[in-house]
Amino acid sequence: MEAHSSTRTIFQNISSIDHRYSISEAAVFDALVPWISEEASVGACVRAEIALVVAHLKVRGQLNDSLRKNLEHATEIISPEEVYAEEEKTRHNIRALVNVIKKKVPSEVAPLVHLGATSVDILDTSLSYRMKGVTLAVVLPELKKLEVLLCNFAEKEAETPQVGRTHGQHAVPITVGFAVAEYISRLGKSILEIERLAGNLKGKLAGAVGAYNATSMIVKDPEELERIYLAELGLEPSEHSTQLVEPEYLLRLLLEFNTAFGVIANLADDLRNLQRSEIGELREGFGADQVGSSTMPQKRNPWNSEHVKSLWKAFMPRVMTFFMDQISEHQRDLSNSASQRFIADYVAGFSLAVSRMSGVIEGLGADHERLLANLRGNTGIPGGVLAEPAYILLAESGVSDAHEVIRKITLAAEKEKLSFAQALSRESDVLARIGNKMLELGLISASGEVSKAALAWFEKPEQYCGLAVKKAKTLSAKYRELMETKNV
Amino acid sequence: MEAHSSTRTIFQNISSIDHRYSISEAAVFDALVPWISEEASVGACVRAEIALVVAHLKVRGQLNDSLRKNLEHATEIISPEEVYAEEEKTRHNIRALVNVIKKKVPSEVAPLVHLGATSVDILDTSLSYRMKGVTLAVVLPELKKLEVLLCNFAEKEAETPQVGRTHGQHAVPITVGFAVAEYISRLGKSILEIERLAGNLKGKLAGAVGAYNATSMIVKDPEELERIYLAELGLEPSEHSTQLVEPEYLLRLLLEFNTAFGVIANLADDLRNLQRSEIGELREGFGADQVGSSTMPQKRNPWNSEHVKSLWKAFMPRVMTFFMDQISEHQRDLSNSASQRFIADYVAGFSLAVSRMSGVIEGLGADHERLLANLRGNTGIPGGVLAEPAYILLAESGVSDAHEVIRKITLAAEKEKLSFAQALSRESDVLARIGNKMLELGLISASGEVSKAALAWFEKPEQYCGLAVKKAKTLSAKYRELMETKNV
Amino acid sequence: MEAHSSTRTIFQNISSIDHRYSISEAAVFDALVPWISEEASVGACVRAEIALVVAHLKVRGQLNDSLRKNLEHATEIISPEEVYAEEEKTRHNIRALVNVIKKKVPSEVAPLVHLGATSVDILDTSLSYRMKGVTLAVVLPELKKLEVLLCNFAEKEAETPQVGRTHGQHAVPITVGFAVAEYISRLGKSILEIERLAGNLKGKLAGAVGAYNATSMIVKDPEELERIYLAELGLEPSEHSTQLVEPEYLLRLLLEFNTAFGVIANLADDLRNLQRSEIGELREGFGADQVGSSTMPQKRNPWNSEHVKSLWKAFMPRVMTFFMDQISEHQRDLSNSASQRFIADYVAGFSLAVSRMSGVIEGLGADHERLLANLRGNTGIPGGVLAEPAYILLAESGVSDAHEVIRKITLAAEKEKLSFAQALSRESDVLARIGNKMLELGLISASGEVSKAALAWFEKPEQYCGLAVKKAKTLSAKYRELMETKNV
Amino acid sequence: MEAHSSTRTIFQNISSIDHRYSISEAAVFDALVPWISEEASVGACVRAEIALVVAHLKVRGQLNDSLRKNLEHATEIISPEEVYAEEEKTRHNIRALVNVIKKKVPSEVAPLVHLGATSVDILDTSLSYRMKGVTLAVVLPELKKLEVLLCNFAEKEAETPQVGRTHGQHAVPITVGFAVAEYISRLGKSILEIERLAGNLKGKLAGAVGAYNATSMIVKDPEELERIYLAELGLEPSEHSTQLVEPEYLLRLLLEFNTAFGVIANLADDLRNLQRSEIGELREGFGADQVGSSTMPQKRNPWNSEHVKSLWKAFMPRVMTFFMDQISEHQRDLSNSASQRFIADYVAGFSLAVSRMSGVIEGLGADHERLLANLRGNTGIPGGVLAEPAYILLAESGVSDAHEVIRKITLAAEKEKLSFAQALSRESDVLARIGNKMLELGLISASGEVSKAALAWFEKPEQYCGLAVKKAKTLSAKYRELMETKNV
Repeated sequence: MEAHSSTRTIFQNISSIDHRYSISEAAVFDALVPWISEEASVGACVRAEIALVVAHLKVRGQLNDSLRKNLEHATEIISPEEVYAEEEKTRHNIRALVNVIKKKVPSEVAPLVHLGATSVDILDTSLSYRMKGVTLAVVLPELKKLEVLLCNFAEKEAETPQVGRTHGQHAVPITVGFAVAEYISRLGKSILEIERLAGNLKGKLAGAVGAYNATSMIVKDPEELERIYLAELGLEPSEHSTQLVEPEYLLRLLLEFNTAFGVIANLADDLRNLQRSEIGELREGFGADQVGSSTMPQKRNPWNSEHVKSLWKAFMPRVMTFFMDQISEHQRDLSNSASQRFIADYVAGFSLAVSRMSGVIEGLGADHERLLANLRGNTGIPGGVLAEPAYILLAESGVSDAHEVIRKITLAAEKEKLSFAQALSRESDVLARIGNKMLELGLISASGEVSKAALAWFEKPEQYCGLAVKKAKTLSAKYRELMETKNV
Repeated sequence: MEAHSSTRTIFQNISSIDHRYSISEAAVFDALVPWISEEASVGACVRAEIALVVAHLKVRGQLNDSLRKNLEHATEIISPEEVYAEEEKTRHNIRALVNVIKKKVPSEVAPLVHLGATSVDILDTSLSYRMKGVTLAVVLPELKKLEVLLCNFAEKEAETPQVGRTHGQHAVPITVGFAVAEYISRLGKSILEIERLAGNLKGKLAGAVGAYNATSMIVKDPEELERIYLAELGLEPSEHSTQLVEPEYLLRLLLEFNTAFGVIANLADDLRNLQRSEIGELREGFGADQVGSSTMPQKRNPWNSEHVKSLWKAFMPRVMTFFMDQISEHQRDLSNSASQRFIADYVAGFSLAVSRMSGVIEGLGADHERLLANLRGNTGIPGGVLAEPAYILLAESGVSDAHEVIRKITLAAEKEKLSFAQALSRESDVLARIGNKMLELGLISASGEVSKAALAWFEKPEQYCGLAVKKAKTLSAKYRELMETKNV
Repeated sequence: MEAHSSTRTIFQNISSIDHRYSISEAAVFDALVPWISEEASVGACVRAEIALVVAHLKVRGQLNDSLRKNLEHATEIISPEEVYAEEEKTRHNIRALVNVIKKKVPSEVAPLVHLGATSVDILDTSLSYRMKGVTLAVVLPELKKLEVLLCNFAEKEAETPQVGRTHGQHAVPITVGFAVAEYISRLGKSILEIERLAGNLKGKLAGAVGAYNATSMIVKDPEELERIYLAELGLEPSEHSTQLVEPEYLLRLLLEFNTAFGVIANLADDLRNLQRSEIGELREGFGADQVGSSTMPQKRNPWNSEHVKSLWKAFMPRVMTFFMDQISEHQRDLSNSASQRFIADYVAGFSLAVSRMSGVIEGLGADHERLLANLRGNTGIPGGVLAEPAYILLAESGVSDAHEVIRKITLAAEKEKLSFAQALSRESDVLARIGNKMLELGLISASGEVSKAALAWFEKPEQYCGLAVKKAKTLSAKYRELMETKNV
Repeated sequence: MEAHSSTRTIFQNISSIDHRYSISEAAVFDALVPWISEEASVGACVRAEIALVVAHLKVRGQLNDSLRKNLEHATEIISPEEVYAEEEKTRHNIRALVNVIKKKVPSEVAPLVHLGATSVDILDTSLSYRMKGVTLAVVLPELKKLEVLLCNFAEKEAETPQVGRTHGQHAVPITVGFAVAEYISRLGKSILEIERLAGNLKGKLAGAVGAYNATSMIVKDPEELERIYLAELGLEPSEHSTQLVEPEYLLRLLLEFNTAFGVIANLADDLRNLQRSEIGELREGFGADQVGSSTMPQKRNPWNSEHVKSLWKAFMPRVMTFFMDQISEHQRDLSNSASQRFIADYVAGFSLAVSRMSGVIEGLGADHERLLANLRGNTGIPGGVLAEPAYILLAESGVSDAHEVIRKITLAAEKEKLSFAQALSRESDVLARIGNKMLELGLISASGEVSKAALAWFEKPEQYCGLAVKKAKTLSAKYRELMETKNV
């Protein structure tokens, strides 16, 4: 560590998080800095060291308001530059920090600084403190914002007909709101889980190998000292510690981040595909002056959805590192030290993706005309989205090979370029059985000719959408309310 | 699918699970077959199809004991061979299954078979059924067995002194039981989490795109039909469905498996290292006739621990597939179909590792003599595991550069090949300050010369082990009890 | 290892490779068994052990035809069952093998069996032997078959117009053959690389730690013995050995498999999307009786392409294990033993995917009518695929904001539902400039009205396809020839 | 993109690469900035755009020295700040760049700027340019430095006896140089491969979908224009392009980086373990004032080796992203855009690890005394490293169960705490047979008592090290020479 200027243009940074995305997503980046930058990292260690001094004073009954004030002041005046300069000498980051702090606190408490602690009592605790902090202050608000935007969109389009698709093929009708409700339900549960897991992060003051060897020499009840220390930082002790806090508390939170990330990536893929030239059902907001391609003037690309998917590809595999960091030999090896520093990158990448997706949903438009045209097969696409109810009604009427009968009608329709209704109209016997069954179920009314009424129904597939509207509305309402409840 | 004999020697199988490990871990393999073999897979689909018929009958008020009996009989007489033969014709596995079932059930209920269901209503539901089943019937019992074996070992060795190690270097003393308690605590919490998550797997009967389109044509309350169907299989409905159950219910269970796997891999690494020639503190059981190496007759390798670590390397990365399978376009694409089939391999690999680790712990021996020699530095290894209390006591006595003073003593000790106590004895002033502090803390008694008593203490590092014994005992007792409680 | 019947129904296997896919892709499975089943694994070890005996005899000048014949006979009569039975006693697989072989060879050479070898001299060598074998005998032929099928398809459709797509949006025209040529070029290079790397796999006879300790006691030139031994198996020695062959020879082959797998997965995704209801440009072959959905009779899903993508998701992440297996402590630890066994699964999964993709390409059809309709925007899709040449021509004519001028025309076209040509026709000044430029470039002829001729050109976008046809033909021809050349 | 100051303290960066490691490894970081920072990224795009103008001028025969000079000047005066400011308007990075460049070049060539190019013709080409550049200018020199340091160390310690270890158990003797030669051989081959692959990166000027649509309107031979453009940047064309260069050229380079990374991680693990308190054979350099632990003054941790291993855990899994980025739908989707930006992080992480490892090797010391003590079993460790030659010699003498005979002697030795030589001395018959065989092989001389001479040999295991010394020397010499040859 040689002396090195601490300021440079961001364009000389290497990670996109620290140059390009720190500008394009400045609001999220700026919100993250107080929690997961190096400044934040040093600051949280100072805060933990001071919490330890406070804990010692409390146990000794020596804490008073003026001392507390002085100690809190110390957390404000220590800069990372100062600590780094000291580290050039010690080549040990926490020993450097301790040296700096000792000079800044009232001399009578200087001997209490770091007393009984091993570096990791500070480092792991302050990591939990920062990860809990960034989750509550940045990640969860961003996620909840997205979830509420999804609720808004789903409610607005709860009744908008859309063709349901499986294997990329037209299947049976749904509504746009129902399709979005999928993500409300999946993401919503993940948000609640993230909230729970962030509240479950732990710290430690159990010493070099976790057995409270040092603190046992210093205080009568070392576990009490640990509890007081951690309570100062809003944390509780790891159930068992080696030199490290049990790694699984944090691992589970990170895995749930990645789970939420997967849900959002799936949403991004759906949005990308629904904006294909041939589909055109949804569209990202697009600035009037925005250029889609440097060479093809007509292009309006779903580039924000693509960006979110791309971030997922960049960050999702990093959970492998989190799993590998479960393994630390004996009471710890240091091989999780550098790797853990990159958790910050992961949290940033995830937050950027969530924020970008909120932007997409905020500007998202549904093309109702196109949606209906696609559903009804008016765009030259072979129809057949009502082959399923035809088969069911025919089966219900007592025809045992109903599936095969209807499959052949769809093949004929395709071959002769007829709509499914047209092809069905030629099979009077089948149509009659289906019509009578529909009458029985109240799908068509008894007035008028049954076959005609049945055919009319088969020309408007949007009626065959089951509970789509209900699900869209129920889930939006439920999760909107849950998002407004504070749980941690 | 051509006709193909369904029997062959296992040595013509390709996956080690199906040849080598099906023999070497026959008990686990045989326990897994009824849940995650292809036979089990087909069987569970039959069970689900029958549950659907039962649900229809219940809704219609037509279920009676004789019908139920007949239907249950059908689940027993359908073989995978028969279904596969039919699939050669249909080239669709569930349609094949339905055709076979229709022939086996009473003709009056044949029209109810598969009525209103899409294939995935059966497939995803039966997957949840099987995953819940294999977890409760095989994975959890194996895990709990391992956890209890660890509790036994930790209790037995709760007071056995051992040197704590960080960075592979001697740090400060612990006990063997304390070291094992780490794994009790970490694995124990994971087991409880697995139990919770297995109980939370879901099924569905929401049709081709999840909107209950088909069942809405058949019954008044399609969600009621779904609940009855799933209750027959001990499941509840997915909160939202597309063609698929929300993927995250199962994903979280699999991630928690992988979390437990990481804990066990860490334990395996510790055991491997503690069996090094130079350390020799623990030893796997070794058969009297067992050969360690085909060429080096003296070898006794920690091969079971190595095997467990190796399985972790083979299976841990497969969670990437689980995360990728979160993404399915629109109401589903089929690109998770083949990949999901390999969840069975994962569950098998994990179960084999747990079982093997139980075998290791069952036969594990601790070499008390070697443990003490290592701790006391009697093996030619530079000592110093008591440098920490020396530094703390000296600091407590008011010396502000205590860390540096002691560090120099350890350097001198190493250079001149003295024990730490010997090197310390030459620094009478330091020793006196330390001794007085020890007296004050009650670590040595007032009778006799202080420095001499202090030195005696420094020759028996095993006394400096903090709360190691207490933690070992508390955690063993706690988790032993938890393992005996049924939670799902 | 207890006695255990070695035969069971394949439906009791756990891995899909050993049940479902061993039937559905029986030809590939059957081709793989002689190389990567357990039977093949034991067989290759026997072959290696015999090669070692031969090498000893050669060095000693004692090999004769009758001995060689007797030794070769031994490789045929040893069954895995026999070796497994012996392993129950020794609990060491190679020691078991050696015991069995010693009983089967002429008694005078029995002392030469395994002489100077450590287990891994046999195991790693036979692994290289099998991996080279399976690559040359199964993987490469399957890959080359696929490559040639792609060449056929690309040539057949070299001139078939298709709209090029970026971001899922219509961009500018290409041809179907050009799109396929992408995969010919990418996959072709990967095939050549696989061929090279398979020929570069290595073996060893360097003993327990790679230093030829044992063989140095037995022969004068242990490296010569190693060369002779390996030459018997068509291999060369690892440049350096520990107990293991350098892991990177095999790693690079596996990484190139995964690279080819990625290319094929990309192709699968393209095929999936081009079969969407709204696109419908290509179509997998579909049996007349095949059922697409158990409930939606009209469905014709691109399930084979989906299957290939799904296999990629299942197997691609396993390269993580291959990378982790680079690490083996000191002269080796055993933690790569179980994990390496699953290379067989990977090779099988990859081969199954290649074979399935060949099936897809074999039956693939192009819907020329739909392709042209999509390109010309006759399906209600906003056109504009010729906005690019309009912009370029306008720019070439000296208009500096040409991109912006054309972008506005595309916006107007979209708003008023005009074709791009129609919208362009209203801008007479722009059209004139473009027309004159076209005249200059020889895109339209001088006879007749320039603007009219220009407009006519803009109504047939398929003319604007650059070198698409040429690239399709050139690359098909090149790689077809390369596939027919034997390189290893 | 709002206006945002482009300068800030590095401690507000989020990625450790851009704060902590940019200080601790300042030399490497500073060397990387001109290639993989955002400044470098923008700069390389400018360079590519200018190369395109030059190519157009060349084709038109209009290039002269003064124009070239003016154009080259443009590459120097364009700052990322300026381009970013323009991007706030266009929201398209390359269109922004083009606008800026047009203002900086002589007005007569302004219409040639970006003419015929799509954004990716610039972006993918400049990425290849930067990746080739950073590999040749930073990565390879760092790797070669490490390789030469390893050669130096291996030569210095070529004859230093060390115990070979398998499974963490003492196996048979090697030398320190031989152990290091493993890494010379593995890393050396990877370095040569990296050199080859960096020289094989490609660019493109094939337009929006790769079919040269636009350039076909502009020049007669668009492939010639592409070749000239790329030659300006030292590149050749991708064999086929879509909108993108074929992804596998870069993928293979990145995979080989990861392969080298794995070799280095393996070395790091070996070094970590050889520095264990109980082994102590090697030692990282350690500053006189350096603090090993904030609380345990005696600690001297192998923290640099741990750091390297940790970086591997952080970066190795990122190859998953590289494999996922092979897939881009049709002629491209944008979902590889954000993810590819993080290749820079990977290259940085890898370079940092290589550099740190060089530091470790530079300061690495071997404790010859400890090495010999460990080998001879003088540290209380059960010996037996010569059980192998005893077994071989006994077998060679015609005893068929030699392995079992010797295994029993090692068990007796262990039980009664005898050295292997002592235990052997009690078995006079065995010893005699062995001794005579040794005599025959010239391992002991005929003068004096055979058994005594044999026993003396068994007390000095370092003699039994095969070709270890030779391999150490040969491989060091070979790769030292190869490192000095320029290949690209």
